[in-house]
Amino acid sequence: MGYFKSIKERDPAARHWLQILFLYPCVRVMFWFRIAHFFYKIKLKFIGEGIMFLLRRRYGIEIHPAAKIGKRLFIDHGVGVVIGETTIIGDDCTIYQGVSLGGTGKEKGKRHPTIGNNVMIGAGAQILGNVTIGDNTKIGANTVVLHNVESNQTVVGVKGKEVPKIE
Amino acid sequence: MGYFKSIKERDPAARHWLQILFLYPCVRVMFWFRIAHFFYKIKLKFIGEGIMFLLRRRYGIEIHPAAKIGKRLFIDHGVGVVIGETTIIGDDCTIYQGVSLGGTGKEKGKRHPTIGNNVMIGAGAQILGNVTIGDNTKIGANTVVLHNVESNQTVVGVKGKEVPKIE
Amino acid sequence: MGYFKSIKERDPAARHWLQILFLYPCVRVMFWFRIAHFFYKIKLKFIGEGIMFLLRRRYGIEIHPAAKIGKRLFIDHGVGVVIGETTIIGDDCTIYQGVSLGGTGKEKGKRHPTIGNNVMIGAGAQILGNVTIGDNTKIGANTVVLHNVESNQTVVGVKGKEVPKIE
Repeated sequence: MGYFKSIKERDPAARHWLQILFLYPCVRVMFWFRIAHFFYKIKLKFIGEGIMFLLRRRYGIEIHPAAKIGKRLFIDHGVGVVIGETTIIGDDCTIYQGVSLGGTGKEKGKRHPTIGNNVMIGAGAQILGNVTIGDNTKIGANTVVLHNVESNQTVVGVKGKEVPKIE
Repeated sequence: MGYFKSIKERDPAARHWLQILFLYPCVRVMFWFRIAHFFYKIKLKFIGEGIMFLLRRRYGIEIHPAAKIGKRLFIDHGVGVVIGETTIIGDDCTIYQGVSLGGTGKEKGKRHPTIGNNVMIGAGAQILGNVTIGDNTKIGANTVVLHNVESNQTVVGVKGKEVPKIE
Repeated sequence: MGYFKSIKERDPAARHWLQILFLYPCVRVMFWFRIAHFFYKIKLKFIGEGIMFLLRRRYGIEIHPAAKIGKRLFIDHGVGVVIGETTIIGDDCTIYQGVSLGGTGKEKGKRHPTIGNNVMIGAGAQILGNVTIGDNTKIGANTVVLHNVESNQTVVGVKGKEVPKIE
């Protein structure tokens, strides 16, 4: 129930845990992802991939079953989200629609991002390559991030510039 | 039939009203949205939300049933479109694929945009927060808009700069 | 089998041709696209459009049946991809999720891009209008391209600037 409570805190349109259970694609995707990840790890890769293929078809959210995802990830709306094979995501992250955690097409091996805890990634942001995003960082909508970002930053723009804090 | 005629004027690939009726996701989504909006208003919120959940699964277009939408909204293509709970849209607007009318994650209450009449929002544009977009304005593809925009403007770029008119 | 081999070269997560056959949306979309394109050309336009409508609903990839597409196009992930009616694509191109090859809304006739051979278009890029992209060019993620681009270039940013090569 901690998961539902954390979603309610992050989405003002959430009303009730039953509504979240039945009508939030993220809840279903993450439930099946844990199962697919298990199959993938015990070398039944095709079953894991097949589960994620069906989910992608239904919800437009594509997560590779080998990705390592922490607790309470909330993918809000989520159409167009792509999370690559060697991605690592910490706890309590929030990802909006259209976000890619992808590769640059040039690397082999660990070629997808490592995301810290409590990171927020705005709609349409593209984080590409084996880069690290620190804890509590916010990535603005449509930002393209191709380098490491330290903790507690806010990053915007196509070149992913860090902006000074205005608080 | 005014709706079909207005779509034909806005999309050169539209050939016939029967084609539009059967093959344009927008027509189906808007038909069901009106029904979902009615249920939501008479406090049968779960039914309204359920209808929109099924539509989102099928067409990749996610509209909150509480949004207030004017006449002849044309969502062209539409995969990845998200329209938030407190959004208000005027008449004769055109929205392309991948557009969010969303929140910034910091506000409560009225936290989504108010869009005027005859506004065009290009593919991948992100309009976030309780901002107002004036009549007849055009928002370029992949633009991020976080502030109010006056009427009759053209806005492009990640910071959403207004560009001088070249006519 | 040349197609499967070329996908395997372009996607490090691809393991086996059977996996590609069963679990890559692109393979199914391109198979049905060839059939839809045939129907469209012999003036059975509604059948061609209907096939592409069903594919769009299932995979979130929307291709107009009249588009001219070369050999071995690989649409990776692909949710949110839109390819317009008068688009021409050469051989061996790679397109990622969220890419539009669309119109600007102002033109009639040939109003969508012409893409050369061996072009890579990054996630979320918007290429709009009757522009030409030369062979072997790479378009960065979330880039907006509204003008012609020569061969062998790398283009990034909202204004689509060409970047000097660092090799």
